[in-house]
Amino acid sequence: MAAALLLLVVLAAALAVTEASASAFAAASNNATAPPPTVVAGKLNVHLVPHSHDDVGWLKTVDQYYVGSNNTIQGACVMNTLDSVVDALARDPARKFVVVEQAFFQRWWAEKSPTIQAIVHKLVDSGQLEFINGGWCMHDEAAVHYIDMIDQTTLGHRMIKKQFNKTPRAGWQIDPFGHSAVQAYLLGAELGFDSVHFARIDYQDRAKRKADKGLEVIWRGSRTFGSSSQIFTNAFPVHYSPPDGFGFEVLDESIIPVQDDLSLFDYNVEERVNDFVAAAIAQANVTRTNHIMWTMGDDFNYQYAESWFRNMDKLIEHVNKDGRVHALYSTPSIYTDAKHASNESWPVKYDDYFPYADSTNAYWTGYFTSRPTFKRYVRAYSGYYLAARQIEFLVGRSSLGLFTSSLEDAMGIAQHHDAVSGTAKQHTTDDYSKRLALGASKVENGVNTALTCLTNSNRTCVSSVTKFEQAYLGITSDKAPKYWLVFQASVPPMGWNSYYISKPTGAAYNGTGYASAVVSPSNDTIEVGPGPLKMSFSAASGQLKRMFNSISGVDLPIQQSFLWYRSSEGDSMDSQASGAYIFRPDGNTPTTVSSSVPLKVIRGPLVDEVHQQFSSWVYQITRLYKNKEHAEVEYTIGPIPVDDDIGKEVITRMTANMVTNSTFYTDSNGRDFLKRVRNFREDWDLQVTQPVAGNYYPVNLGLYIADGNYELSVLVDRAVGASSIQDGQLEIMLHRRMLKDDARGVGEPLDEVVCVGKDCQGLTARGTYYVNVEKIGHGAHWRRTYGQQVYSPFLLAFTHEEETEWKSYSVPKASMMDANYSLPDNVAIVTLQNLDDGTTLLRLAHLFQAAEDPQYSVLTKVDLRKVFGKRTIKELTETNLSANQKKSDMKKLNWKVVGDTENGPAPIKGGPVDSQALVIELGPMEIRTFLLKF
Amino acid sequence: MAAALLLLVVLAAALAVTEASASAFAAASNNATAPPPTVVAGKLNVHLVPHSHDDVGWLKTVDQYYVGSNNTIQGACVMNTLDSVVDALARDPARKFVVVEQAFFQRWWAEKSPTIQAIVHKLVDSGQLEFINGGWCMHDEAAVHYIDMIDQTTLGHRMIKKQFNKTPRAGWQIDPFGHSAVQAYLLGAELGFDSVHFARIDYQDRAKRKADKGLEVIWRGSRTFGSSSQIFTNAFPVHYSPPDGFGFEVLDESIIPVQDDLSLFDYNVEERVNDFVAAAIAQANVTRTNHIMWTMGDDFNYQYAESWFRNMDKLIEHVNKDGRVHALYSTPSIYTDAKHASNESWPVKYDDYFPYADSTNAYWTGYFTSRPTFKRYVRAYSGYYLAARQIEFLVGRSSLGLFTSSLEDAMGIAQHHDAVSGTAKQHTTDDYSKRLALGASKVENGVNTALTCLTNSNRTCVSSVTKFEQAYLGITSDKAPKYWLVFQASVPPMGWNSYYISKPTGAAYNGTGYASAVVSPSNDTIEVGPGPLKMSFSAASGQLKRMFNSISGVDLPIQQSFLWYRSSEGDSMDSQASGAYIFRPDGNTPTTVSSSVPLKVIRGPLVDEVHQQFSSWVYQITRLYKNKEHAEVEYTIGPIPVDDDIGKEVITRMTANMVTNSTFYTDSNGRDFLKRVRNFREDWDLQVTQPVAGNYYPVNLGLYIADGNYELSVLVDRAVGASSIQDGQLEIMLHRRMLKDDARGVGEPLDEVVCVGKDCQGLTARGTYYVNVEKIGHGAHWRRTYGQQVYSPFLLAFTHEEETEWKSYSVPKASMMDANYSLPDNVAIVTLQNLDDGTTLLRLAHLFQAAEDPQYSVLTKVDLRKVFGKRTIKELTETNLSANQKKSDMKKLNWKVVGDTENGPAPIKGGPVDSQALVIELGPMEIRTFLLKF
Repeated sequence: MAAALLLLVVLAAALAVTEASASAFAAASNNATAPPPTVVAGKLNVHLVPHSHDDVGWLKTVDQYYVGSNNTIQGACVMNTLDSVVDALARDPARKFVVVEQAFFQRWWAEKSPTIQAIVHKLVDSGQLEFINGGWCMHDEAAVHYIDMIDQTTLGHRMIKKQFNKTPRAGWQIDPFGHSAVQAYLLGAELGFDSVHFARIDYQDRAKRKADKGLEVIWRGSRTFGSSSQIFTNAFPVHYSPPDGFGFEVLDESIIPVQDDLSLFDYNVEERVNDFVAAAIAQANVTRTNHIMWTMGDDFNYQYAESWFRNMDKLIEHVNKDGRVHALYSTPSIYTDAKHASNESWPVKYDDYFPYADSTNAYWTGYFTSRPTFKRYVRAYSGYYLAARQIEFLVGRSSLGLFTSSLEDAMGIAQHHDAVSGTAKQHTTDDYSKRLALGASKVENGVNTALTCLTNSNRTCVSSVTKFEQAYLGITSDKAPKYWLVFQASVPPMGWNSYYISKPTGAAYNGTGYASAVVSPSNDTIEVGPGPLKMSFSAASGQLKRMFNSISGVDLPIQQSFLWYRSSEGDSMDSQASGAYIFRPDGNTPTTVSSSVPLKVIRGPLVDEVHQQFSSWVYQITRLYKNKEHAEVEYTIGPIPVDDDIGKEVITRMTANMVTNSTFYTDSNGRDFLKRVRNFREDWDLQVTQPVAGNYYPVNLGLYIADGNYELSVLVDRAVGASSIQDGQLEIMLHRRMLKDDARGVGEPLDEVVCVGKDCQGLTARGTYYVNVEKIGHGAHWRRTYGQQVYSPFLLAFTHEEETEWKSYSVPKASMMDANYSLPDNVAIVTLQNLDDGTTLLRLAHLFQAAEDPQYSVLTKVDLRKVFGKRTIKELTETNLSANQKKSDMKKLNWKVVGDTENGPAPIKGGPVDSQALVIELGPMEIRTFLLKF
Repeated sequence: MAAALLLLVVLAAALAVTEASASAFAAASNNATAPPPTVVAGKLNVHLVPHSHDDVGWLKTVDQYYVGSNNTIQGACVMNTLDSVVDALARDPARKFVVVEQAFFQRWWAEKSPTIQAIVHKLVDSGQLEFINGGWCMHDEAAVHYIDMIDQTTLGHRMIKKQFNKTPRAGWQIDPFGHSAVQAYLLGAELGFDSVHFARIDYQDRAKRKADKGLEVIWRGSRTFGSSSQIFTNAFPVHYSPPDGFGFEVLDESIIPVQDDLSLFDYNVEERVNDFVAAAIAQANVTRTNHIMWTMGDDFNYQYAESWFRNMDKLIEHVNKDGRVHALYSTPSIYTDAKHASNESWPVKYDDYFPYADSTNAYWTGYFTSRPTFKRYVRAYSGYYLAARQIEFLVGRSSLGLFTSSLEDAMGIAQHHDAVSGTAKQHTTDDYSKRLALGASKVENGVNTALTCLTNSNRTCVSSVTKFEQAYLGITSDKAPKYWLVFQASVPPMGWNSYYISKPTGAAYNGTGYASAVVSPSNDTIEVGPGPLKMSFSAASGQLKRMFNSISGVDLPIQQSFLWYRSSEGDSMDSQASGAYIFRPDGNTPTTVSSSVPLKVIRGPLVDEVHQQFSSWVYQITRLYKNKEHAEVEYTIGPIPVDDDIGKEVITRMTANMVTNSTFYTDSNGRDFLKRVRNFREDWDLQVTQPVAGNYYPVNLGLYIADGNYELSVLVDRAVGASSIQDGQLEIMLHRRMLKDDARGVGEPLDEVVCVGKDCQGLTARGTYYVNVEKIGHGAHWRRTYGQQVYSPFLLAFTHEEETEWKSYSVPKASMMDANYSLPDNVAIVTLQNLDDGTTLLRLAHLFQAAEDPQYSVLTKVDLRKVFGKRTIKELTETNLSANQKKSDMKKLNWKVVGDTENGPAPIKGGPVDSQALVIELGPMEIRTFLLKF
């Protein structure tokens, strides 16, 4: 019998480096839109914006919400909303409605008759039905990666473009629990949005903004881009529901119908008009200009739209007859145009709206970590999806079709602000996972077939020739492996390489040189690390003591331990419990899991491993590689014990000997790093009520602290919450398990269990973070480049082969790019995707912020002809971020701001692309999007 | 100063007598309708009948239900239903819906645009939207008078006819709590209905009928008419909702959507089809023929109709693909045609479906009496309304317009099965009263003006000349009057007379002869009565001992007392309480209010009065008139004390020395008398669980018992519940007050209170009943003729006049009829009404059943030329009962029945009307309806 063989194909997912140059950004022309005719000058205009907030899964699954099943949990059926809204709009051309979540709309659209579709086309063309936001979901802003945000938005935007030739103009992030800088400038301004609207900002912030009429601002989320990527931002004064008494949801108990039929009893026009005017004036008192927005809707509203429109029709009629204020059907776009036309000056807002608290002890910072394994599942598929699309591109348009599209729905849904956020019910979360698994399994089939094609130039590329096994994503087998094979591999950029592994036979086998060995400590300190980075552990306590880099000379005393915060179950002063959304520790001092840790060290030629058993439910393996300057730390946490009836929120904490002045840095959606100052907010005088929870921030890429000498950086493999509660410290919340619901709607404690048969145990979370110490000023390069590898690791594929067929792989190694060409280190291909219209979508991202790194924070260039090697680009069109309009067609509104003092250097941006040269320039943080035809 | 004078105008409301002759009823031709094409022969056809049951007031008022306010009580808005149903029907021509209550539909129709009206016209014309029942409300069947039933049905039917040229074909009494004989033959067959459908029949009856496949019957409600006024009757096997799992009301928790989109999760077509087939087969097992009806709706359903139709569409599609059974959109008419086409033989049902019980201790016989003062209010306006319309006719079409129409809406609504039934919430009942009061006040204005016109031939008939005061209906002043003036008046038929009353002056005054006097008893027995009827009372106990009629020689020992049943609050075996619907006494022996009664006798030349103080809360005045052979008994009951926490249900009971063999007779809606046998049902072997409540029957006109010698009859002034619990006894429940709700939905104990300022007391009910004893065989004449006077008493009107103007009334006395003509004693004009199309509606009713009275139960004749005196009838058209089709156009289906043994004499019915002679013949119980043009 021939020996079974293993073929390893390693594919490098998009990463490269080149030189830099500078180019001024040509600001797009600003067209101040005239106010629409329905606005009345000199009066307070009340913009009624009819909307329904349709979570793409939360208490019910997305399909249950769509079809209206499982109503015992929540009475909600999106079909009702869309069906009845279309009827209601068709009945009266004055009526308007905004449609948000494409995950629902597209389900609905696909099943509609041509007759209904024609009606909808008319409604969209006339502006009665307007798409806003327009992504697949209303994505979360804390626990999502910017590439996923772009992907899910592009999915929705391109469908809207294709079906209706429309480009959404407004961001509508009304429900996410805090708002990110990346949302503002990237998923806002760079999409071509004029405005973004949302309900949830910190309660202290809101109070101050109401007092200052500062709820509406010009938001400059990017320190790199400043005013060139700003957006008009409307934070609602209360919530995204209407003022009290003005909701008209069918069957709702609170409905007070407008009764203007004198032949019926209970005629109430005067009363209703008076209430309307009073509510409008109250809002006008906290709002600049004579335009206010009323969000006429709520969660899964318009189940029967006529109930709303019938009453709004009457309100508009009678309020306008009354004449004290003016009411009109509106949309965020119309509202924004009216705001813009007012020529008002607006306050400026920088950075982001994190963390979000809705009351003293209710910091929504728990969800940064909630459901850590699901967060990892989403993140892992994110990188896989990117790589799979590259393979789809590499293999070319074939009979395989666009096989990666099987994941786009599931991935789009997973970005929802109750999905990856970890705030959905368990059954809904299971549904998200199932969707990802089903979608991925189809993509995996496609990838396997494609790899077969790519590695065998003479084989027909059909799915039946699939040979590769589904082994990507490091799925572990049921049994712990006895051995791990470690070897060094090299892969060309945008290419692959193959490695053949066989049983050693005969003299070729050198039984000693390659095996790792368990080492017993011989003195107080154990130093490990086969390469430049060394870590020292105490043999007595088993704990980390020091990190030392022989290349950079960095030498930092550092400790690391696991601790847990006791989840509050509420107290006599405030019943607020810690839960899926909210992190409320019971006391600000976490409990140490163990101060004495059994230690095992395994040394090998390529990697050293330090195994630490912190407790029966916390295990950690630290790996130091021969050629890497960081430590890879794999933790295994769980089942978190709760037999003491105490919920626990588990952190890893690093304590370094650094003076960090309350300052630390966290990324925004894996893109920009923002400066955080403990117990401080830039926009108001923070009243500190939660000294731990109130200092937590979302982390997707990593975080770091710095003193005059060093930067201590940590990169993460998924979304987490993290902070620096003491100078010199970094802490990351890795896992949470609690026994109470936090009363924000989900109605379940975040108590994840895994059942095998009837044996249910608390969820065990395994993950990896990466620790690096550099000299001050040198951390960014590692964070950016290795961060990209963490997000988008090598794609592994395996197959068994008969030894006799080894040679049949005709293309064991290849690259799409020209030989000797690779991307510069500060650029990544963040999208390379064949679209269904025959074009290819390409996004190039500069990975560095302005001034982040002296070498890499510069203009850089990508030579597309070299990138695509043998393929010829026939046509290249630069577009906005979501690829639904030409970049040259993007319009920008000019806004006046209060005390505009922007005086730094103009942002560096790439210039126009010469269609012959096809060299793309990118300034720091720039992402450029292109549609290519080959 | 001139003395103030009082003018009394007395108007005789329609009553007269003439001779008789016989005529065979020409049976209408029977057109067996072909089954509609959607029915599939040889398969079980499941007729899906989409409907919403919209109570015209119950937990909310009719307007609240219509506009959808007050949703904290009940989420219900009829506008939603009608708006959304029209949209849903317009979307797909296969869909159907039945509209029932015109009180709602007409509110809606009036406010619809011509565009929507045109759509509705198309839907009606195509049969997608079908009007069934078609009255103003779905009237009660226990506590309503047949004239009110006819009126409210005519109101709705004529509007449907006028607006849509349609005549409803099906009775749809799905919710009333038991079903009357009059409903079957009069408000059924005589309307031209082919069928009647309902949900509520006795639970024992239902069980037997399910076992016998006897839920569907041919119902011959009239013993007089037999098969000539029969109707196909469909009692539902469960309720008027769909089978479990097949309701699709928007937002309803129980919705299980049909999911046939394979791209979504939870595809469930097979499961849903299997459930559908199983439910259909289960129903087919208790149903004759291969047609079953599913009532696809419930109370205030179709708030968003698309939610239903979307799912029903899919059920029909997939069930029919499956093929085991056949599903179709249907209506009661289509269903009835299919039943008819099946050529099946049906069981026959006689009489009625009273009383209704839904379980062992839940006899719905409390509502026969619930809210006695409201029941009287409705009844009083019923007679008034009839008289007012006659005055409107008499005064002729003038500038007054059709002033009586201001009552038609309120009166129509008041007949609803939660209105006059007494089963609405208190605030809704107040709303009914308010509507009646408002409507009546307008009618009173019209009547007053009309009387001014009629009595003054030379005055212009405009409302400004109104002189008469609003004094009809015997409204008592706040203070008890010191004196009552009693005098005898004579009034011509269909006419009026005026009496002038002034202060006596000088010699004309004889101070003695006309005053009544209080008499002190001088021995054991006090005999009272100035005329032929004498009543004897015990001076010791104050109680009635004997009735004696000096003309007929009747001499009957008889006692009368007040008693109360203790309302059950449920017990350990059954939590069922007595309440608004249900009469459940706690024990079968009522408590006597008092066995020793202070007595006061007042004798006068025209009337003797016996005042009995039974207790602090029960007072009774018995009046015996000089020229009347019955006693008039006025009771005042209340406030019923409940400070002992015991609910009480108060009866008056007469105990006569008669052997009545468990038998007594009660009327059906004031029309036919039905034989009742204690503890017995004709249709099944009654298991007696409630020996009192289970023997109660609704009474509107009266009840009687008989033995070999005498008939003891009682007439009532409103709807009541009554029984004969022991031989020789009659008992009438007059008032009820209790402290528990009976859990049938109203959610309030029936605890009526009246508040003056903050002083609230239990409701006091005052009323009158009439007692007569005749020799056997002679009771009917009194019951019929005096019963008509009780229902339709003299209309009184008063005005103050200066003495000098006395003579200015130029027409103090007049009659519409020819001099010396009057109607025969066995005929009444039950409707004489000017319609808005210029015609006049006339209904003549024979007042006697077949064989009820040897002299009067015969064919009788009315000479219309004499009835209308000076006015010339230009055109006369005989119609069905609700005047929405010509009598000659009425179609009747022939039905085969099981063991048809009808072999008595054919019913006597009047023949065709000669358009020259204009003599109308009427057989016993016949009501003939005509449209006249003068």
